[in-house]
Amino acid sequence: MLTPDNRGLAYGDGFFTTIGVIDGLILWQDYHYQRLVSHAHALQLAVDSDSLLATLQAHAQLLQQGVIKVIVTRTVQAVRGYGFVANVAASPCEIWCKATAMTINTAQHTYLPDGNSLLIQPMTSAICLTAQLACLPPPLAGLKSLNRLDSVLASGELQRLKAKSLESNIELGFDKGLDVGEGLVRDMSGSWVEGTMSNVFYQLSASQLANNAQSLENFATSENSYSNNDVNNDASYSLDGQWFTPPLTQSGVAGVMRQVIIDAFAKTETPVIMRALNDDDLPNLRGLFFCNALRGVMPVTSLTLLSGEVLSF
Amino acid sequence: MLTPDNRGLAYGDGFFTTIGVIDGLILWQDYHYQRLVSHAHALQLAVDSDSLLATLQAHAQLLQQGVIKVIVTRTVQAVRGYGFVANVAASPCEIWCKATAMTINTAQHTYLPDGNSLLIQPMTSAICLTAQLACLPPPLAGLKSLNRLDSVLASGELQRLKAKSLESNIELGFDKGLDVGEGLVRDMSGSWVEGTMSNVFYQLSASQLANNAQSLENFATSENSYSNNDVNNDASYSLDGQWFTPPLTQSGVAGVMRQVIIDAFAKTETPVIMRALNDDDLPNLRGLFFCNALRGVMPVTSLTLLSGEVLSF
Repeated sequence: MLTPDNRGLAYGDGFFTTIGVIDGLILWQDYHYQRLVSHAHALQLAVDSDSLLATLQAHAQLLQQGVIKVIVTRTVQAVRGYGFVANVAASPCEIWCKATAMTINTAQHTYLPDGNSLLIQPMTSAICLTAQLACLPPPLAGLKSLNRLDSVLASGELQRLKAKSLESNIELGFDKGLDVGEGLVRDMSGSWVEGTMSNVFYQLSASQLANNAQSLENFATSENSYSNNDVNNDASYSLDGQWFTPPLTQSGVAGVMRQVIIDAFAKTETPVIMRALNDDDLPNLRGLFFCNALRGVMPVTSLTLLSGEVLSF
Repeated sequence: MLTPDNRGLAYGDGFFTTIGVIDGLILWQDYHYQRLVSHAHALQLAVDSDSLLATLQAHAQLLQQGVIKVIVTRTVQAVRGYGFVANVAASPCEIWCKATAMTINTAQHTYLPDGNSLLIQPMTSAICLTAQLACLPPPLAGLKSLNRLDSVLASGELQRLKAKSLESNIELGFDKGLDVGEGLVRDMSGSWVEGTMSNVFYQLSASQLANNAQSLENFATSENSYSNNDVNNDASYSLDGQWFTPPLTQSGVAGVMRQVIIDAFAKTETPVIMRALNDDDLPNLRGLFFCNALRGVMPVTSLTLLSGEVLSF
């Protein structure tokens, strides 16, 4: 029974994960399991991850196609206020699961270098948002905690921009063109960190990289990098070349799909490089995609900057 | 009915306030009303503050002595994920109130320069914590939002230190001395911002102030400042002199009692000065108190720094 005393509601004291289910099986199960373990440790919560995983597998079997959302919160504590009892290694927790039946569109897909299949969404355009994400202390940075009010406000801004864009297209008599699919969000330090509901990967022009001592060491040109041209994939979007992704050590959520992609490229000649994406880098972008565990990869064809300038890829 | 779909639980999408009730009346009612109005505006929530205040007054009348906690959350939205519907000025909300009977100890009190009575807690000692608070974007900084996981971890650290301190006192055969009453917490920029459950006010040595151009303008020496010696107060703690408080424009919660005190000193010769409290300032501290709306002022006799050094006031 959920009450207003629940610390997840009162203080955002907990975490969540959203799990895709296809044919009764959990997508990226090992990664979700790792999230349970790492988040329980970071928040000092006593989660029996093995038992929870077994429960989720049973839910998935019943659901067959859809999404399971899991919320883990610290139980009500004997001490008043924000604190929690100190004489235990980890606090007891409450777990809420909600299964929602839906069909995950798997029509378009490609293959990662390690052979894993990856959903590819239709091309979309993106826009830089003015809303900013919190800079978080080390135990919280990268966590999918219940404290998501900064992402809520960023998503609200994106919704308003989408509504405005749709309206002006109708007014001007244009056909409904490319939708704005995602917003790119900065954190309080000014670095561009992630999308409103996804992580971001990007490519830079080679000239930019030549000037960038930090990146040179790991840089491999696209000529001798992994190529997916020899696999039978439906999607035309290429993942060739050197990808970068923001480090998420001070803000953002380190998503499951982000880690899947990092791991898939780890043993290629172009492993993904963790690199902050700053304002100076934006004119040198030559590729960008967003990703999350449910949608896979969302390739971006254009990015509208805060200045109104539009970059096309 | 509270469900796991509630956005307060799912994303911390809302705010709260905790209201003291004495003799059936709401303490600092105008300030709590202002919080309802300002937080609803910041989070784009459609709160009928007048109607909610009337409800709270009725609760207070029934409760007579105690605390009412109010949680306001955005209702479930038609759009999936973090976002909220864009075609309304503000989102509908759900409100949860919980009244808890308790006696607020009003034995010790003093008077503010504007004549308002102020609770004074027993002297306590404080300690600098290693846990840090998030740096928040402008609409969220200073808000009592439901995103309090950074304060939860800071309070957890304080609980552990209290337990350890109690244990070692018992082991060494000491009488239980001065308890550690509160922890001082930095934000991600390194500035000391507030307590784990309170705001902080501080005084600096005059020599420090003479070197500080920023502060000189508003500085008045304690000789010609407001004095509360002529009022009949039970407490020996003096609020004379120049007080500073961190600005809370990038982190922390701007509490009701903090604003009460700022307003009370506004028309004196020593209005409270908003001034960041940095590591360099700590050796020059000559006074410190924490405050919140339920406990009033918590005077601090000593502060243990991260180095282990103890400052006494």
